[in-house]
Amino acid sequence: MPSNTSNTRAFTSIKIIGSGLIGTSIGLALASKGVSVEMADVDPKAAKLANDLMASTPAANPEIVLYAGPGSGLKSAYESEFKINSDLKFIDIGSVKTKSLLEVSQSAAPTRQFLATHPMAGREIGGAQSARADLFQSRSWIYMPTDLEGTPVDPDLVAAGLWMIETLGASPVAMSAQKHDRAVALVSHLPQVMASLLAAQLLGAESELLDLAGAGLRDTTRIAASSPALWDEILNSNSAELLPLLINLQSDLGAFITRLGSSASVSDLIEAGNQGRSKIPGKHGGAAREYSLLPVVIEDKPGQLAALFDECAKAKVNVEDLTIEHSPGQFTGLITLALSAKDAQILQDHLTKSGWSVHAPR
Amino acid sequence: MPSNTSNTRAFTSIKIIGSGLIGTSIGLALASKGVSVEMADVDPKAAKLANDLMASTPAANPEIVLYAGPGSGLKSAYESEFKINSDLKFIDIGSVKTKSLLEVSQSAAPTRQFLATHPMAGREIGGAQSARADLFQSRSWIYMPTDLEGTPVDPDLVAAGLWMIETLGASPVAMSAQKHDRAVALVSHLPQVMASLLAAQLLGAESELLDLAGAGLRDTTRIAASSPALWDEILNSNSAELLPLLINLQSDLGAFITRLGSSASVSDLIEAGNQGRSKIPGKHGGAAREYSLLPVVIEDKPGQLAALFDECAKAKVNVEDLTIEHSPGQFTGLITLALSAKDAQILQDHLTKSGWSVHAPR
Repeated sequence: MPSNTSNTRAFTSIKIIGSGLIGTSIGLALASKGVSVEMADVDPKAAKLANDLMASTPAANPEIVLYAGPGSGLKSAYESEFKINSDLKFIDIGSVKTKSLLEVSQSAAPTRQFLATHPMAGREIGGAQSARADLFQSRSWIYMPTDLEGTPVDPDLVAAGLWMIETLGASPVAMSAQKHDRAVALVSHLPQVMASLLAAQLLGAESELLDLAGAGLRDTTRIAASSPALWDEILNSNSAELLPLLINLQSDLGAFITRLGSSASVSDLIEAGNQGRSKIPGKHGGAAREYSLLPVVIEDKPGQLAALFDECAKAKVNVEDLTIEHSPGQFTGLITLALSAKDAQILQDHLTKSGWSVHAPR
Repeated sequence: MPSNTSNTRAFTSIKIIGSGLIGTSIGLALASKGVSVEMADVDPKAAKLANDLMASTPAANPEIVLYAGPGSGLKSAYESEFKINSDLKFIDIGSVKTKSLLEVSQSAAPTRQFLATHPMAGREIGGAQSARADLFQSRSWIYMPTDLEGTPVDPDLVAAGLWMIETLGASPVAMSAQKHDRAVALVSHLPQVMASLLAAQLLGAESELLDLAGAGLRDTTRIAASSPALWDEILNSNSAELLPLLINLQSDLGAFITRLGSSASVSDLIEAGNQGRSKIPGKHGGAAREYSLLPVVIEDKPGQLAALFDECAKAKVNVEDLTIEHSPGQFTGLITLALSAKDAQILQDHLTKSGWSVHAPR
């Protein structure tokens, strides 16, 4: 759950090991808040680029060390930094937490100076050059208040971590490493594998067939664009949680194939998907929430979306989400706005009166 | 390909058999253009509701009969209508075409009076009450100019069909039934099965785990909300094309599981997904097109999107797509606008000058 009354403590200097997308984005955001940032990397060129981007003067003895490199280098980085400074406060941001905490528990340095965290930020975009200070804005950022045995992390380190998370615009969520890894296996790693496998089926298809692709195929394969090296490490680190889910899906797929092969009904299998889909929470962490969808046809040219949102502002409604649809050879677009049922009705009435091509909400 | 110089011919009356979402939406759109529409259905109540919605006076001898009912009733409907009128012009709009044309070839009525078509309109929304005249706006609408043997369909019927398609705002695309069925198996039916199976894995998961769900899980499972009865018929009708694709994916999934189980690299399998994903065409039917993504942080309240799109209009840029991100407990939102690289640069400069929280395009 979001900590709305976090006990936070500001810090003024940090060393970030790992100058990729995530590390550099954290550095940029902290530097913009006046924190002294030093970027490091096994690749000196990457570190140089990241430090140039920071335009910050590194502190001689940084208060916090944050590790944003590959999981394989975590343990030795923690031990090295502890040797330099026995008062070390260390934050990790890797995608799989049980493995990180296990390695730290086997290291020469104490677990209470290690804060395991995981920002739930989109990882299908990659590269240090893509770093952005707002990468964590409006995202959940999971952290583990204890080690694997339940021993609490140094409260001052937790307070510094919470300050960083909130300063970067994210929402801190406390969770055990086991639960976190089970959660990301289900909501992130399993969808990643299925999207990658699905997209791989398109290789070798005639382009004329792919011309019929609609929003369904685009949505189901969007995250298939993710980085192979990064995801190889993530999926392998969490294979204990992921494998049972993959095997279960494999078994369900086998049943589906058997049914279709004997012309038997698959409607209960589609129905199970209906029910699973309805369990995904909506915006703002509430329970799964349904919006009304209001379709509006606009011309696909500059100014039309602006004019539409002007009308939304005039009608004082809050647009929760929207999609834009086009088809080959056509230059009008169908905008589908998601709003509360009440707002959808208000906006439909308003747009109809103003002469827009709007249809009944559904 | 889109027919930009279609030979079309208007008609003034139609009988639509099947008063569900698609049939009723076609009726509404044609009635709004002054066509006399008669709605029919095996369920008299559904037909009554649809006819009330039309507010149209049915013609005694409709020029066109369109079939929008379940595939199981197609052949007998075609034969019955041919008995009533031997000059029958009949249009079918089912999702799988080889089976439709095969049944017609085995019927007592000639194939040249049967135009097989398929509107590529979103089917995960269901029910006659959801019918909307703009359902086909900006969508592709496939049609078969010949029967399975290559015998041309009556040119006057084709011209009437093309007029209907264009009148409904869709883009006609000529294709053989075999190629159509192969295409929809790949771009529509396979993603449907995988989304349903993936979403079904969420059943029984603790809600705390699902709270971590992000855009990845939401996008990969959106179409899992589709109608079980409708998709049971579609998937079973096209099982000849779909089964080989499912079996191939099953084999790839098995290889993935074997790799992960032995801690072997899966990066080439993720890479294959990268390549497959890149083959999906972008908007307007062009080759796969990459947009620049421009992130902007706004407050999540009425008027903010309008103000943002006002700026887009002032900067004279064309927004191709956008996503809205939120996280639990937070009331700012991250808008990511998709634009051409040139427009993204223009807009970033413009928004920066106007004091918006905008970051570098990627």
